[in-house]
Amino acid sequence: MNAIWVMLGAILVIFMQSGFVMLEAGSTRMKNAGHIAGKTIVALGIVTLVFWAVGYALIFGTQGNSLIGWGEYFGFDVKNVPDGSTVAPTVMFIFQLAFAAISMAVAFGGFAERAKLSAYLIFAILFSVVVYPVIAHWIWGGGWLAEHGKQDFAGSTVVHLTGAMAALAATILLKPRLGKYNKNGTPNDMPGHNQVFTTLGVMLLWVGWFGFNAGSTITVGDGSFFGFVAINTQLAAAAGAVAAFLIAWAVNGKADIGVMLNGALAGLVAITASCAFVESWAAIVIGLIAGVVVFLSMRMFEKLRIDDPIYALSAHGTAGVWGTLSNGIFATPELAEKVGVGKAGLLYGGGFEQLGVQAMGVVVCGAFAFLASYIILAIMKAVMGLRVTEEEETIGLDLSEHGSYGYPEHLKAAQAEARGTVGAQQTI
Amino acid sequence: MNAIWVMLGAILVIFMQSGFVMLEAGSTRMKNAGHIAGKTIVALGIVTLVFWAVGYALIFGTQGNSLIGWGEYFGFDVKNVPDGSTVAPTVMFIFQLAFAAISMAVAFGGFAERAKLSAYLIFAILFSVVVYPVIAHWIWGGGWLAEHGKQDFAGSTVVHLTGAMAALAATILLKPRLGKYNKNGTPNDMPGHNQVFTTLGVMLLWVGWFGFNAGSTITVGDGSFFGFVAINTQLAAAAGAVAAFLIAWAVNGKADIGVMLNGALAGLVAITASCAFVESWAAIVIGLIAGVVVFLSMRMFEKLRIDDPIYALSAHGTAGVWGTLSNGIFATPELAEKVGVGKAGLLYGGGFEQLGVQAMGVVVCGAFAFLASYIILAIMKAVMGLRVTEEEETIGLDLSEHGSYGYPEHLKAAQAEARGTVGAQQTI
Amino acid sequence: MNAIWVMLGAILVIFMQSGFVMLEAGSTRMKNAGHIAGKTIVALGIVTLVFWAVGYALIFGTQGNSLIGWGEYFGFDVKNVPDGSTVAPTVMFIFQLAFAAISMAVAFGGFAERAKLSAYLIFAILFSVVVYPVIAHWIWGGGWLAEHGKQDFAGSTVVHLTGAMAALAATILLKPRLGKYNKNGTPNDMPGHNQVFTTLGVMLLWVGWFGFNAGSTITVGDGSFFGFVAINTQLAAAAGAVAAFLIAWAVNGKADIGVMLNGALAGLVAITASCAFVESWAAIVIGLIAGVVVFLSMRMFEKLRIDDPIYALSAHGTAGVWGTLSNGIFATPELAEKVGVGKAGLLYGGGFEQLGVQAMGVVVCGAFAFLASYIILAIMKAVMGLRVTEEEETIGLDLSEHGSYGYPEHLKAAQAEARGTVGAQQTI
Repeated sequence: MNAIWVMLGAILVIFMQSGFVMLEAGSTRMKNAGHIAGKTIVALGIVTLVFWAVGYALIFGTQGNSLIGWGEYFGFDVKNVPDGSTVAPTVMFIFQLAFAAISMAVAFGGFAERAKLSAYLIFAILFSVVVYPVIAHWIWGGGWLAEHGKQDFAGSTVVHLTGAMAALAATILLKPRLGKYNKNGTPNDMPGHNQVFTTLGVMLLWVGWFGFNAGSTITVGDGSFFGFVAINTQLAAAAGAVAAFLIAWAVNGKADIGVMLNGALAGLVAITASCAFVESWAAIVIGLIAGVVVFLSMRMFEKLRIDDPIYALSAHGTAGVWGTLSNGIFATPELAEKVGVGKAGLLYGGGFEQLGVQAMGVVVCGAFAFLASYIILAIMKAVMGLRVTEEEETIGLDLSEHGSYGYPEHLKAAQAEARGTVGAQQTI
Repeated sequence: MNAIWVMLGAILVIFMQSGFVMLEAGSTRMKNAGHIAGKTIVALGIVTLVFWAVGYALIFGTQGNSLIGWGEYFGFDVKNVPDGSTVAPTVMFIFQLAFAAISMAVAFGGFAERAKLSAYLIFAILFSVVVYPVIAHWIWGGGWLAEHGKQDFAGSTVVHLTGAMAALAATILLKPRLGKYNKNGTPNDMPGHNQVFTTLGVMLLWVGWFGFNAGSTITVGDGSFFGFVAINTQLAAAAGAVAAFLIAWAVNGKADIGVMLNGALAGLVAITASCAFVESWAAIVIGLIAGVVVFLSMRMFEKLRIDDPIYALSAHGTAGVWGTLSNGIFATPELAEKVGVGKAGLLYGGGFEQLGVQAMGVVVCGAFAFLASYIILAIMKAVMGLRVTEEEETIGLDLSEHGSYGYPEHLKAAQAEARGTVGAQQTI
Repeated sequence: MNAIWVMLGAILVIFMQSGFVMLEAGSTRMKNAGHIAGKTIVALGIVTLVFWAVGYALIFGTQGNSLIGWGEYFGFDVKNVPDGSTVAPTVMFIFQLAFAAISMAVAFGGFAERAKLSAYLIFAILFSVVVYPVIAHWIWGGGWLAEHGKQDFAGSTVVHLTGAMAALAATILLKPRLGKYNKNGTPNDMPGHNQVFTTLGVMLLWVGWFGFNAGSTITVGDGSFFGFVAINTQLAAAAGAVAAFLIAWAVNGKADIGVMLNGALAGLVAITASCAFVESWAAIVIGLIAGVVVFLSMRMFEKLRIDDPIYALSAHGTAGVWGTLSNGIFATPELAEKVGVGKAGLLYGGGFEQLGVQAMGVVVCGAFAFLASYIILAIMKAVMGLRVTEEEETIGLDLSEHGSYGYPEHLKAAQAEARGTVGAQQTI
């Protein structure tokens, strides 16, 4: 019974890749849309193969220590592992694989619209070997942060912050997109080409998140607790969307669709750590604050001239930090005991102890993910280059990296027209 | 085990919001697409928070009477409710929340392409407090219609008719879109901009409906009955699509895609009430009739100068009425007994008794939902206005309500071209 | 418990229809997009009704022989079948129905962009009565190939090869699309209009495939085996995507998005037969080879002047053949025994025996599916015609078969412009 539940969770988390396809494609320009969508499939392929070969071993390998796992490489004979756990090892294997792939998808947000295809491929391998497994081992694989009682139920830190720190390293090394900033440093608006895609992407992610969070209960138990985690997830997403909407309306006079959508995502990212540790009213507060935080964070990065086309740094990074810290404030003693990790938060008499553990987790994991990614990408930049040429960027990555437009009829017509000819007829 | 099944149902019903995003965006024009898609997310957020705060209490609160529930506000401590039922209260909570959000999404069909964003927000709150919970309590919360044995397995009346009646009130008060009707009263065709979106939306809804209907069995039991309900759901959807297709072909000479799609939806809406009460052959008959009825209903509303851009009145309203009545005709005594609600229908020796109960349910619930919504919206219209200005409607709600196009590259190019300049180059 | 698992599988396989909607629409041109998407819904409707009426009986009917099933027509009283099996008959009924609909969707790949709507409808009926049930009975319904120990866990042969052979018959009889081949026989590129749609379609299919393959375990058992099947499915899809990507890059210098996507599909199709019979390293090898095979197959059909717009022949046909044969090479004795069908493959001491059975299955089933489909379609061609007129094909099937564009705003603007007028303003 637990196996069905976690298997459903794994399917939902893999389903979230559909959400990333639509969210990223919708948030970028037409000339890059086929590339952005298609690379998600190949990246998922690479992460899957690497996780099977070494990723699982580095996280959960039984011959490891508190810094890294070791031992069960190449998927080992997972179907014949003696099963002493609540869920069959095969099901846990694919569930964990799905999480690793989400972190990778987040990281690639920082590559959008200017990184070479080859940079995606190489970094997909290196991130999946060197970066993600280390942090996942520390917190979920019995590593040193697990020993400190770091609470991160479904991965605000492990999955989202790690991915966002890699995205930050990438976006710093890649520099902003052509035309994003004027000479005087003021930013230009470069809106994504399809808000319906973006909205669908967010809604698919929202649905998949029930696998992410509620699936992480692992056990069905009395059939009540996973429902509670699902309620908290739903409430935080709702609160994030509403809060981001309201603050954007209050500040700008108009409610930007992108802000609303990132509000929902930020609520989901934030509650990921704390969904099993906090009461429902606290889930709403966490979501509301996440919605405000993501709005401010999006403005901050824009002003800092850090070009983040898909807002991965804000929705996954800043919200991931907030979510991890929120545990140290709102975790109740009963729920911390039920989950069996860490202690009560600040508001429940826990003092600053759990909050300190959470803050340490954020700082250490964030620093490691950023530095490891930065070093890898800096070496890649020196050796092979990370960014396409200006001409390739101008014509778009669909043509330059894949040889054909993702929207051939739209863009050939636009080209023909720009040349002063009437070219639309051929295309219909 | 029951908890897994109902939790899966809840996830599928929340997933249906993705279907509404695509169905509504595809059925409307490009200049409104970002708005239509994005508002679904914020509306889902509002309904979620309201349901947690008071909606659940007004439907299922244990201190209520036969007219309204009362008592367990603010989600109460749902995870610690002593569990005397077949499914954990936490899981039922999120399952019911998902249904409330569907009814809201249906209602917003009547707002499309001309209502102010602020009207959506205020009505989302009021509908979720004043309209939906009342009818849900009457039929599902132990209210007076439940006492009469009103059959509505998964909500043809509670969810679909209620939503459609609110949509009807809205569309009457909002008046038709600019350009929809000529001075002599003849209608113009204002097709949605993307039939692929619309089709995807319908298919996602179809899939989600297995959570809606089969999830409403609540218990897994011997593992057979929910399969039976799923078969009936699939057959009715199929029959609805085929019937609508055939009648449109026969009458118009060409089979309109929109009619086919609404046929499938109408079959699904109609079988929602009766899926657990009727034999499979009857499910097909119910679907076939729903497919014909939705076609005739779409024509009727068009002629009545009631502008219903997304066909919510026909697919959810008219089909919801037919579905509710169909129970009174086709319900078998064995299945009515198995479900434990109401009696056999007309064809199975039940006479007009159950049909009378069903008709009473339609009339009373339909009237209440319409009147309550109409009064709320009429007050809103007087106080704050419901509709954007003519200029805002002409430029589209993406720009006027959110400050940016949902399809910036498509529409800026079109604008530039209309001004006689060659502006496409910049956009690619 | 088994019932929940298989019901989830059925829902996922029905969900794959969403994947086909997007994959097919994205792979074709704008003027046909509404038609391509919408016909999927009506075809699903027809297959559903036919399967209920006679399809199930012809596959699983208990009064049949080794060539065909017979007996339980019109869905019989499936909910009251005495349940001696591991899964309730109602659930198996809808699970099998979903598979039949997938095979139909594959077959319609060969019809794209030129077949009459009426040809779809008639062939949907005939394929679902005469073609699919025969092969499904032979292998899954206790027919003569089952008696030979033909291994086809989830339908590389039954579903994919059968559908692809029907597509081949159709594409031969329909002839290539206008403009696909020049007079000297060289092909022109006719790219699909939306690679984001195509990518989403593939990702949705990938997710649905967990229902297809892992759902086919039918029993949950110790909760481990379905996880193993899911891992193999994920690995083969990943390997297929990566292999197709690499070979396209190596051969063409640029990695075509379509090839990458078809690589993932080919991996999925190939592992469908063998997912429960092979070790995980073999799943990767099967996927890698499938990725290379699909690339070569796409080129081969293009050179043979067989116009296959959606690459159904390569992704489902060639990969289906490879997947079926792969069992005869990689099946392990332990897993063959566990599943209870057939024997070990060539690499595990089974010699050529199982490989021979697999090859026989491919040849006989492929020949039957092709010939039966060819005869049906040839008669239809003589009686009613299969293909729209040249003029209808040129203006597109959205207008010619359904009376309205799927993208009215895009295409009316393009038309107006082609006529030298500035018509974009009206459309926004």
